[in-house]
Amino acid sequence: MVIVMSPQATASDLATIVALVETAGGEAFVSRGMSRTVVGLVGDLDQFGTLNLGAMRGVAQVVRISVPYKLISRQSHPDRSIVRVGGVSIGPGTTTLIAGPCAVETPQQTLRAAQMARAAGATLLRGGAFKPRTSPYAFQGLGEAGLKILADVRGETGLPVVTEVVDAHDVELVASYADMLQIGTRNAQNFALLQAVGDAGKPVMLKRGMSGTIEEWLMAAEYVAQRGNLDIVLCERGIRTFETATRNTLDIAAVPIVQRLSHLPVIVDPSHSGGRRDLVLPLTRAALAVGADGVIIDVHPDPTTALCDGPQALVHEDMEELGAVMRGKSLWQGQVLDGFVPSQ
Amino acid sequence: MVIVMSPQATASDLATIVALVETAGGEAFVSRGMSRTVVGLVGDLDQFGTLNLGAMRGVAQVVRISVPYKLISRQSHPDRSIVRVGGVSIGPGTTTLIAGPCAVETPQQTLRAAQMARAAGATLLRGGAFKPRTSPYAFQGLGEAGLKILADVRGETGLPVVTEVVDAHDVELVASYADMLQIGTRNAQNFALLQAVGDAGKPVMLKRGMSGTIEEWLMAAEYVAQRGNLDIVLCERGIRTFETATRNTLDIAAVPIVQRLSHLPVIVDPSHSGGRRDLVLPLTRAALAVGADGVIIDVHPDPTTALCDGPQALVHEDMEELGAVMRGKSLWQGQVLDGFVPSQ
Amino acid sequence: MVIVMSPQATASDLATIVALVETAGGEAFVSRGMSRTVVGLVGDLDQFGTLNLGAMRGVAQVVRISVPYKLISRQSHPDRSIVRVGGVSIGPGTTTLIAGPCAVETPQQTLRAAQMARAAGATLLRGGAFKPRTSPYAFQGLGEAGLKILADVRGETGLPVVTEVVDAHDVELVASYADMLQIGTRNAQNFALLQAVGDAGKPVMLKRGMSGTIEEWLMAAEYVAQRGNLDIVLCERGIRTFETATRNTLDIAAVPIVQRLSHLPVIVDPSHSGGRRDLVLPLTRAALAVGADGVIIDVHPDPTTALCDGPQALVHEDMEELGAVMRGKSLWQGQVLDGFVPSQ
Amino acid sequence: MVIVMSPQATASDLATIVALVETAGGEAFVSRGMSRTVVGLVGDLDQFGTLNLGAMRGVAQVVRISVPYKLISRQSHPDRSIVRVGGVSIGPGTTTLIAGPCAVETPQQTLRAAQMARAAGATLLRGGAFKPRTSPYAFQGLGEAGLKILADVRGETGLPVVTEVVDAHDVELVASYADMLQIGTRNAQNFALLQAVGDAGKPVMLKRGMSGTIEEWLMAAEYVAQRGNLDIVLCERGIRTFETATRNTLDIAAVPIVQRLSHLPVIVDPSHSGGRRDLVLPLTRAALAVGADGVIIDVHPDPTTALCDGPQALVHEDMEELGAVMRGKSLWQGQVLDGFVPSQ
Repeated sequence: MVIVMSPQATASDLATIVALVETAGGEAFVSRGMSRTVVGLVGDLDQFGTLNLGAMRGVAQVVRISVPYKLISRQSHPDRSIVRVGGVSIGPGTTTLIAGPCAVETPQQTLRAAQMARAAGATLLRGGAFKPRTSPYAFQGLGEAGLKILADVRGETGLPVVTEVVDAHDVELVASYADMLQIGTRNAQNFALLQAVGDAGKPVMLKRGMSGTIEEWLMAAEYVAQRGNLDIVLCERGIRTFETATRNTLDIAAVPIVQRLSHLPVIVDPSHSGGRRDLVLPLTRAALAVGADGVIIDVHPDPTTALCDGPQALVHEDMEELGAVMRGKSLWQGQVLDGFVPSQ
Repeated sequence: MVIVMSPQATASDLATIVALVETAGGEAFVSRGMSRTVVGLVGDLDQFGTLNLGAMRGVAQVVRISVPYKLISRQSHPDRSIVRVGGVSIGPGTTTLIAGPCAVETPQQTLRAAQMARAAGATLLRGGAFKPRTSPYAFQGLGEAGLKILADVRGETGLPVVTEVVDAHDVELVASYADMLQIGTRNAQNFALLQAVGDAGKPVMLKRGMSGTIEEWLMAAEYVAQRGNLDIVLCERGIRTFETATRNTLDIAAVPIVQRLSHLPVIVDPSHSGGRRDLVLPLTRAALAVGADGVIIDVHPDPTTALCDGPQALVHEDMEELGAVMRGKSLWQGQVLDGFVPSQ
Repeated sequence: MVIVMSPQATASDLATIVALVETAGGEAFVSRGMSRTVVGLVGDLDQFGTLNLGAMRGVAQVVRISVPYKLISRQSHPDRSIVRVGGVSIGPGTTTLIAGPCAVETPQQTLRAAQMARAAGATLLRGGAFKPRTSPYAFQGLGEAGLKILADVRGETGLPVVTEVVDAHDVELVASYADMLQIGTRNAQNFALLQAVGDAGKPVMLKRGMSGTIEEWLMAAEYVAQRGNLDIVLCERGIRTFETATRNTLDIAAVPIVQRLSHLPVIVDPSHSGGRRDLVLPLTRAALAVGADGVIIDVHPDPTTALCDGPQALVHEDMEELGAVMRGKSLWQGQVLDGFVPSQ
Repeated sequence: MVIVMSPQATASDLATIVALVETAGGEAFVSRGMSRTVVGLVGDLDQFGTLNLGAMRGVAQVVRISVPYKLISRQSHPDRSIVRVGGVSIGPGTTTLIAGPCAVETPQQTLRAAQMARAAGATLLRGGAFKPRTSPYAFQGLGEAGLKILADVRGETGLPVVTEVVDAHDVELVASYADMLQIGTRNAQNFALLQAVGDAGKPVMLKRGMSGTIEEWLMAAEYVAQRGNLDIVLCERGIRTFETATRNTLDIAAVPIVQRLSHLPVIVDPSHSGGRRDLVLPLTRAALAVGADGVIIDVHPDPTTALCDGPQALVHEDMEELGAVMRGKSLWQGQVLDGFVPSQ
């Protein structure tokens, strides 16, 4: 940590800071510059944090030097991790396709979507039983009935299940059915929920907050890890920006950035980020090319009947190409997909 | 709702849309323009929503016309509402000051802060017992012990209590102590929590999500209202933007905008938005001038010891001026406050 | 400036940095922390800038300490400045109303708008002869003919003229007619234009870039000042954010922030920021309450015929209230303006 | 265009709108919905635009249906275009590497950088002679001397030259040396400059504004095209968001989105977007995988001496891998690049 004194700081102000730091067990190194005086602190960062140095008279700026996360950082764990979900690996050495319907609507719809997913090479099934909807009047999901459907479909297809949990109260229930618990973007800083899934003993998929910084995302993972659960997969799903052409702006650079900061696997959601079916495959190619450990994709057997997010779902006709992309056979995209007329 | 067909849409595409709308019990009015065909829909918006028209062949754009919230809208309730909290009114006809420490740390600190607040004219005490912290290693609040302190201080000062609840599981506990339940910005779309406070039978203060649109904010209020609880006060606390000079960017225009859309009272948080003590009073003046129904402000008897957000707390010396501002005696600010040297 | 070494930095890396700094004539103070080594630099910031220290092996972070602007900073000029425009003062001690039509369309429209402005207490007339339009097919302004109209109207009303110049090539022409040259938000980093108006010998109004940070805005002012022209008024006009309820988000906190950083006057544009007629007076009150040195407002005698930005213009019926607000007689706004039905 | 009337609109308000539209030569189709009345307009959009319908009494919302650009749209020109620069093609069928130093500093540095570029497979050389710097105290470029150096290096290497022009006044000069004129992000809405390069008879590279929407970017291209110059290449270089981990957030989805809306080629700048050397190759892979027509990359023989943007430049050791990526031999990136320690 480094403290920058303001130009008007007095010798007494400086002495107060130094004394405070030393009382807290640290050391203060004073550098008197031409325009500013700077104090370098050596000692326990957590202790300095409680001193609230920024509020002290004469202090212009406090610059933190270390990263605030530990368990999930690559400094503490230099090799990148593999997370296993129901026997399926996510991480270095594999590229994982997670696919399925955005919402579990009926057993037939979910089964057909799972079959589509498997045909494209998916090794994990996603499906929402609890849907966070911006409107209280919209379909909220089938709840436990939806979890049962997912379990049945797992039985039929062999695909382990990833599903969202929206309330700490439901964690035990969801964990009894699912192989991996998903935390949605709107709960990215629901710390009670993060702690609850940390305690649940199941792998966790942590979506980035729609306006979460990379650091906040990693701190959310640290909340989970702090409970002893390091089986965390991070999912970049686009961030909120001024651009309205897409639902969110996929922050493709987040993948390599986070892979350098954390040992956890990082996947991409090309469905919710772009929000358009015609962008899913291009963004999937980009995700794989940039080094993502996998992608999570919406598929639906009949999107015109979908109860949520229909416009972004991939359909039967897309499965062959998706499979080719996942196997690295269709990474080079020199052509624009002309067949599909985009909405808006 | 209006559907815009794409230029490549065929007559068959159009016929399909019209048939679908009519099957859903609505009427479709087709306008053939020079460059586009547009279909106006008349009927039940909720039913059209489930049709997923945006995914249908030939559809370029779906434009929604009505607002999606009802109970909290001014259309349904033309007069602006007054919400009563422990006997204190918030709404048209009054300007309410809610003040107190960001976090409840000790009984003495909380009592002194409450006395500061009252001296400035506060009629409600705020204080955090459950603190949502971005880092799992930071002080998370005293929990129930903090609630007890707040209740004791209420007893001594007569100030009803506003405090944050972070988990649906804690709603009952917090409601047994507090006069008003606060939902923080990071839980602005924690729908389970919104429903729980909607059921709790206490007034609710709903902070805008740090990257929440006004519409999402109002839909969050609708979640609460839908449970039968219309005692909701909306709090604008700044939004996340590219500007790093402040923690958040106070969206001052949100106050009049929301007051036109909803009958609920709207207050402003000049402490967490600006994040700097020297901005609190200027932003308070702006808030009152623009018509906010009140403000909620951090005060601390000794910010150098504060366990969170020390740099933004107002101190003893500020109370007199705060009181003058609240009474409308110091609204005209032609001078720049020169005494305080801002951090950064 | 402070350099933070990365954990993997070697002793050789550190020695290289120290040698480089000393060669550049500076001093390097090394602090070896528990997790990081930090080097404080003392010397000429401009020289350190050219060293490109951030690219050197072992360097994790470079933290700049001083502010990069000088001439316009309050450190160099502690008292706030008054800028005079055609005899009218803008700055501490006065609150200036600048008003007029967004675009100069006809002599009658401009004269009537100027009369409206003066009736409300305006001391300066604004009007666009050169309009930057996002579409090349939209009305681009009357050019020199528009400047002539403005000059005629100045003759009739006595109001000095503020008008936008969009191209360095036109600066001389515009300066021959106008009393103050305005740089629009889209040219906030058009450095050639900034230098040209710096040379023009007329006061300058510098609008903040729609996505410009406060620092970039101040550096743009420094471009002008560096040419010897310190007669600069800064205008906050809203920034681009994710919120679509308004054209821009008025950053009201920018006013006090900038007034602490720079001695230049700071005004607010409540017309282009909110983009709605019903927000103009509320935002004007907020601007004055927060301490702005003035406001610049769109008025139009008949907005239904306006060639640009009609929905935000104030009309005849608003002038009386505007005048009251400017005189401090209507600052307290406890009521919501119910008469006007907002668009959207 | 569709007009949505507000709930309080009267029959007289509606009649006024209809009359206005008919007077302008259009047709108005009125649909009376359950909650709103909607008027569909058929006729000349440009004429409706001047009517300023949004300001009329009773109008709640005006929805525009057509896209405002024509010459550059795919509707007007269904096949994607190839733009030729000094004999080199950019567009469908080729993937173009444009590389060189961010700023032209010395003849040797520029020649060495050009040789590095060519070794990696570049067919065009970029280099800045006129540098837009946020600070007036920073190196602004060598001007015409820089153009001469670029011309000499073209002579030696055979690489045609792309260079930025910052002022309309310099267009003729720059066009006399360069093969392609670049418009930088800060001039994305410098309409005078856009028109000047439109007239210059040379191909244009148009960088997206750092906070420009896709539509504004396309309208900027329309400004150029309207002068008769359709040799335009669009360059996505990242947009400004709340995330501070990178200089800008690369909007990778913009590539396929724009390729569907416009026939112009679209390239990506992975250097200025990520702002970090260790992100350049990952982002290049992502750009090629998503279908970009090319990339433009900073290279420098010795970044520690670079006068601008040193931290993002690729160096000698990167050229082999860059070449492999461009030839499609290294698109699959399953590993994280561990060798480089990122700054910050």
